[in-house]
Amino acid sequence: MTHSTDSLQQLTQALAHFAAERHWQPFHSPKNLASALSVEAAELLEHFQWLTEDQSRALPADKKEAVAFEMADVLLYLVQLSSALEVDLLEAARRKMVLNAKKYPVDRARGSNVKYDEL
Amino acid sequence: MTHSTDSLQQLTQALAHFAAERHWQPFHSPKNLASALSVEAAELLEHFQWLTEDQSRALPADKKEAVAFEMADVLLYLVQLSSALEVDLLEAARRKMVLNAKKYPVDRARGSNVKYDEL
Amino acid sequence: MTHSTDSLQQLTQALAHFAAERHWQPFHSPKNLASALSVEAAELLEHFQWLTEDQSRALPADKKEAVAFEMADVLLYLVQLSSALEVDLLEAARRKMVLNAKKYPVDRARGSNVKYDEL
Amino acid sequence: MTHSTDSLQQLTQALAHFAAERHWQPFHSPKNLASALSVEAAELLEHFQWLTEDQSRALPADKKEAVAFEMADVLLYLVQLSSALEVDLLEAARRKMVLNAKKYPVDRARGSNVKYDEL
Repeated sequence: MTHSTDSLQQLTQALAHFAAERHWQPFHSPKNLASALSVEAAELLEHFQWLTEDQSRALPADKKEAVAFEMADVLLYLVQLSSALEVDLLEAARRKMVLNAKKYPVDRARGSNVKYDEL
Repeated sequence: MTHSTDSLQQLTQALAHFAAERHWQPFHSPKNLASALSVEAAELLEHFQWLTEDQSRALPADKKEAVAFEMADVLLYLVQLSSALEVDLLEAARRKMVLNAKKYPVDRARGSNVKYDEL
Repeated sequence: MTHSTDSLQQLTQALAHFAAERHWQPFHSPKNLASALSVEAAELLEHFQWLTEDQSRALPADKKEAVAFEMADVLLYLVQLSSALEVDLLEAARRKMVLNAKKYPVDRARGSNVKYDEL
Repeated sequence: MTHSTDSLQQLTQALAHFAAERHWQPFHSPKNLASALSVEAAELLEHFQWLTEDQSRALPADKKEAVAFEMADVLLYLVQLSSALEVDLLEAARRKMVLNAKKYPVDRARGSNVKYDEL
């Protein structure tokens, strides 16, 4: 699968086919998919929990590979959830960035790690 | 932003610019981004925690909108983490799907919610 | 350890000794302990992610045992975090219950799964 | 509630009463309680996500208070889940510590942040 038009769209279709072949739809309620997604997000975090921030910026190759697969797991559930709920992921992400630009205006947010309601 | 070539690529660049404008790179260690991602995954899950599976399959419009924004938040951190670690998200997802096909062969996994090490 | 005065107190001391013996204090910043706690909470959730709510109310004995150990893991990190931050867990829990009683008055909250800011 | 015999036991009873008064038992399947617990664990983690480890070791008083309440939330759901599943939390924690002592023998685990299967 090395087409130059590879995209979330193709991944979405491949995942729908994968689950249908295995008759997994009954288990794939949005509630369950959201649970599975958060479990994968925690498996991703687990790779970093005892590392310092500096160590996390310089991962050895094998660790980076394991982390890449956890990130893939998160994306796979995110895409399946977007199918189940008929949510356009990229469109939602773009709209959220517009909101974030208002919540974190450059002049007030620069260099700050403070949450928007305390800016 | 309604080009037919909209993709993760453009989102990645927009996010890099957003963070650079705000001088947020010092806070964006992979360790911190992984934490933020799991926090957003939990905010997504929170919308479903008291719903039944059937209710989760029939979300009212306002709830679906809120959920779409949480999914966007997860994607935004996933993309920022992929930049920080130089991980190709779609490529990792495709490779993971190949692995998953081996872990869950159709004949053995059909109709089953059992984890691969117990199949 | 089967004294009738067994309590969180004794667990707290046993954990402090366990970590000190292994020179783990440098890794046990509150930031890291909070990460580890959320990772364990997700491992607990993983046991339920594909089960229905009814199945979760009738766990087979081996599954219940595995779940008990995940709950233990969560408690162990919660206690270590309370030591690191000098937080009295039971006292905080009691104060939080007083707050919860105000957020969810019986007459308005009865039979409802709605969050307090929407009651 | 300031008895010197305050314990998890009393908290357990108080929580059972609180939920019964509000007719919340239908929502409190173990599956849902485990979800709620992981959501609270993430709210706890959120307080630390942009802090450095050193900053997390020196929290200002107001931040420490907010964190104490999140820890309380985690404990409250952990206790409710232990009631729902009839799991003795302290006993499970003690048994898990015995297992952990075997997984992380002092001589091999000292000063190491490596997971037991890589020790």
